[in-house]
Amino acid sequence: MSTARVVADLSEDELIASFVQLLPRGTRTVVPTGDDAAVVAAPDGRFCVSTDVLVENRHFRLEWGRGSDVGWRAAAQNLADIAAMGAEATSLVASLVLPPQTPLAWVHDLCRGLAEICRPLGVGVDGGDLSGGTEVVIAVTVHGDLAGRSPVLRSGARPGDVLAHAGTLGRAAAGYALLASGHEDVDEELVAAFLRPVPALEAGPAAADAGATALMDVSDGLLRDAGRIARASGVVLDLDPVGDAVPADLAALAGAAGATGADPVAWVLTGGEDHGMLGTFPPDVPLPAGFRRLGTVRAAGHEAAGRVLLGGQAPGEASTGWDHFRG
Amino acid sequence: MSTARVVADLSEDELIASFVQLLPRGTRTVVPTGDDAAVVAAPDGRFCVSTDVLVENRHFRLEWGRGSDVGWRAAAQNLADIAAMGAEATSLVASLVLPPQTPLAWVHDLCRGLAEICRPLGVGVDGGDLSGGTEVVIAVTVHGDLAGRSPVLRSGARPGDVLAHAGTLGRAAAGYALLASGHEDVDEELVAAFLRPVPALEAGPAAADAGATALMDVSDGLLRDAGRIARASGVVLDLDPVGDAVPADLAALAGAAGATGADPVAWVLTGGEDHGMLGTFPPDVPLPAGFRRLGTVRAAGHEAAGRVLLGGQAPGEASTGWDHFRG
Repeated sequence: MSTARVVADLSEDELIASFVQLLPRGTRTVVPTGDDAAVVAAPDGRFCVSTDVLVENRHFRLEWGRGSDVGWRAAAQNLADIAAMGAEATSLVASLVLPPQTPLAWVHDLCRGLAEICRPLGVGVDGGDLSGGTEVVIAVTVHGDLAGRSPVLRSGARPGDVLAHAGTLGRAAAGYALLASGHEDVDEELVAAFLRPVPALEAGPAAADAGATALMDVSDGLLRDAGRIARASGVVLDLDPVGDAVPADLAALAGAAGATGADPVAWVLTGGEDHGMLGTFPPDVPLPAGFRRLGTVRAAGHEAAGRVLLGGQAPGEASTGWDHFRG
Repeated sequence: MSTARVVADLSEDELIASFVQLLPRGTRTVVPTGDDAAVVAAPDGRFCVSTDVLVENRHFRLEWGRGSDVGWRAAAQNLADIAAMGAEATSLVASLVLPPQTPLAWVHDLCRGLAEICRPLGVGVDGGDLSGGTEVVIAVTVHGDLAGRSPVLRSGARPGDVLAHAGTLGRAAAGYALLASGHEDVDEELVAAFLRPVPALEAGPAAADAGATALMDVSDGLLRDAGRIARASGVVLDLDPVGDAVPADLAALAGAAGATGADPVAWVLTGGEDHGMLGTFPPDVPLPAGFRRLGTVRAAGHEAAGRVLLGGQAPGEASTGWDHFRG
């Protein structure tokens, strides 16, 4: 019964052979997966690289949604890191730890999810490794090409710059809250925003081309990630009041907030994993398509460098974003 | 007491800050770890990439040896994959899954092991990710530069070529057997060969420069990996009798074989993780330094393509190498 097969029914070579044809070769792939290493073109003469790991029951649950959602999400968050340098993704590799009883169909579905997000972008799935283990782990490393752009770091924000954001805020957190509380039918779009986020990938190179002084993707929550730009740049970031800045984001969260009793403003400020692009731009630069103003960059002084303010005030205590170890 | 601290005592940012200065920046590193992605020079205009994952109690045990050994080994096996393309490693990234009670000192020691093997090679540890989990997982992705060489694939072996090997065979397997049976004081060199393998890294580019027609690193055992070259190339590989080909390897295993009752020939033929370089060379080419002849490449015909013979005969049944899923 092929639907009941688990990974322990196959040798490692058979398992690889069963899914390798599901994975796309990229437009930059020179030597595809299957040898000791892949070879990928780096026409810029540099490559960007970022890695992220997803762990069962921490970042996903096998019973929530499909393997393809997990594959999509594992790639999406890495692709966002490449975009946040101002680069375009070219290639990824993925290591999988699979308990012996993992359904083969789930693994194939995971590969389909990787392919669904990568193939339209021309990104190759150019290698991987497999091991047994007690819980599913997916470690993805993704590469990108800057196409001659200067990488946009977190450290370039200057006093007077405008803080702006492309993408959504709080929706993945709201979707997670709906799933965790059994309210997933309240808002399927929010649940999808958690299971299968669509990062603002084009906004990264667009921000670089527009002259962004700093850029990152929001993976751990707006306040926490804004703090990273503020610390790296030695500045203070002052966010506009949330109701003024992102009324559409708040409106999109209203149903989920009602169903779960949560505060939608907290989702906007601390919810991660929407993978929008958070950047700073010189005040005289028109914001590129997709970006909206979120606040301003101020010099450190009265407030210490690295602080993030909300309407000029310190935000409340409960706003530090997700932490894997303090949890 | 700092010696008793575990990773759960620190936030993710604090944990990263506690070890990031232990990790080397590479000679090719343009933007080091700490931003959304690192940027690495790829002067060749291409890069090689390979990934491997190590799982606690499958690839290592916390009670066997030090964290630095695990870090060294995680890098070593990836560096070997890059060498096996004929390339020189430039950069790696590492994702770690750490149970909350993992000693902080063990994590720092792991970073030191990564640094000990990478720093002398000019390889940067240019990024990573952390997550909690129930068992330690280390996923390393390494990159290399071909410096204008053509990548040496597994598929280029031709009938009449000489099969040759640089490095050691069977020692990591013997060291593992000593550890697993509590005989680790019988031969500390063999135990070290398992805990801290020294791949034949220079032999990879040297083989490419000498005109190797096929090349791979021996990570899963000589017979199994030779079979991969044979299948990819559509040829038969005929190994010389082990006693003739690698007498020094057999001699090095004698003490461990005596202590554990194992067959040293089986270690040579099926023991993985020594990470020597296995290559095929045209018969008129002098073998580069470090390589010794192991056999010959024959056309498929009487024997099917992909077969590996030992002195012209099929090797015994017990010689298929390690498999993570069938175990």
